[in-house]
Amino acid sequence: MVAAVKVRILGVGMGPQHVTPEVADALRTVDYVLAAEKADDDRLLALRRAIVRAHGGAELVALPDPPRDRSERLSAGGYESAVSDWHDARAAQYAGVLKERGGTAAFLVWGDPSLYDSTIRVVEKVRALLEPHVALDFDVLPGISAPQLLAARHRIVLHEVGKPVHVTTGRRLQEAVAAGMDNIVAMLNPPPERLDFTGLDDWTIWWGANLGAPGERLVTGRLRDVLPAVADARAAADAYDGWVMDVFLIRRDR
Amino acid sequence: MVAAVKVRILGVGMGPQHVTPEVADALRTVDYVLAAEKADDDRLLALRRAIVRAHGGAELVALPDPPRDRSERLSAGGYESAVSDWHDARAAQYAGVLKERGGTAAFLVWGDPSLYDSTIRVVEKVRALLEPHVALDFDVLPGISAPQLLAARHRIVLHEVGKPVHVTTGRRLQEAVAAGMDNIVAMLNPPPERLDFTGLDDWTIWWGANLGAPGERLVTGRLRDVLPAVADARAAADAYDGWVMDVFLIRRDR
Repeated sequence: MVAAVKVRILGVGMGPQHVTPEVADALRTVDYVLAAEKADDDRLLALRRAIVRAHGGAELVALPDPPRDRSERLSAGGYESAVSDWHDARAAQYAGVLKERGGTAAFLVWGDPSLYDSTIRVVEKVRALLEPHVALDFDVLPGISAPQLLAARHRIVLHEVGKPVHVTTGRRLQEAVAAGMDNIVAMLNPPPERLDFTGLDDWTIWWGANLGAPGERLVTGRLRDVLPAVADARAAADAYDGWVMDVFLIRRDR
Repeated sequence: MVAAVKVRILGVGMGPQHVTPEVADALRTVDYVLAAEKADDDRLLALRRAIVRAHGGAELVALPDPPRDRSERLSAGGYESAVSDWHDARAAQYAGVLKERGGTAAFLVWGDPSLYDSTIRVVEKVRALLEPHVALDFDVLPGISAPQLLAARHRIVLHEVGKPVHVTTGRRLQEAVAAGMDNIVAMLNPPPERLDFTGLDDWTIWWGANLGAPGERLVTGRLRDVLPAVADARAAADAYDGWVMDVFLIRRDR
């Protein structure tokens, strides 16, 4: 058994075109890369594999992703607890490998580790599991996030001059509106027909799916006018890439 | 006189370590790079020059930065109008060069073009000035932003699980608190003694200055405990690099 391990959490942005020099350097010096593998055809794992191969070709250790309760009836509290259980299961798997192999391991984070990503929290759980027998040190390198690429593709700034931007999840959209927010980025979104856009007919939306991937789709316009186009574009992105993730900015009309 | 020009707005992150492959490729294919040059010793221009040299060595055309009214007595409305005048003056300079030289020009944006950066708005003003005689097309590539690097250095996620993060300016901090925000990133900050932290004694701050630069400084802790350390660290970053820019996250204690 080893006495110490090092973990590097590496943001890889929205694709190989965003892998920064510091992340590429880190990949060339790690002993192996840890990744979760989904049961079905895992195209995001294939993308991770390609990035590792392009920068030093460290071994990629893929672990089966533990099952997660994605029941739609989960309350907000139930959602957080389901996420926490899932993190615990992942952490136990990773702790086992790190204890066995030691050295320096990397995790590749799609987008940026600081925004709606669980890797930092999972690694902290791993550290708690390994202590006091194995010391775990980790660092984090940033990557291009989905809201940034959304803004770049639409050629916009995420806020008006000197004004704020509020970043939240699709399920908290109305909570943000009720708090008076009028410039909102939403991530982790269900399909648009399951989002509550009540009262937002006159707002403008800048929407994107699978940003940076071959199936990328963009839609912009008044919410009341473009929601059907968003639903169509989301289905098209899913059909093209075999997966779909979307992000959008909505802004109150002035 | 030319009939069409192309402009590429390139986010270069917080230093050469963040220049993405797509930005590096773009730099190698542009005809020249446009940049504003401050009257005094401009170290950020020197950093831009080093990045251009590292990726193809296109000519850097530096234009004197027009004067800007930074009077502290400006009201919020006065601030926006002073910024707008300054953008107009910059746009006129750039339009002159683009009309004369044509081809494809790049602007390098420190951090990310989508967050508290004026380049996209200035380029839209340039386009308006050139029309209808010269057509201007532009695209935007994202870069690592200061809040992302702040989070990476402190090894944190910018929000609690599934919760929002509110991004605003230092001068709008109390406005965000009054709206019920309890997890706030502040950018474009004056020195901490000119910020209003009233009522935030128990909040936690994660603060950083000159992130990614040699003079980088980090401070974290309860606001009431660490404000003097923040002021000292800000002065130290300024003394080391010859310039200072800071960013922080504050979170309500639960």
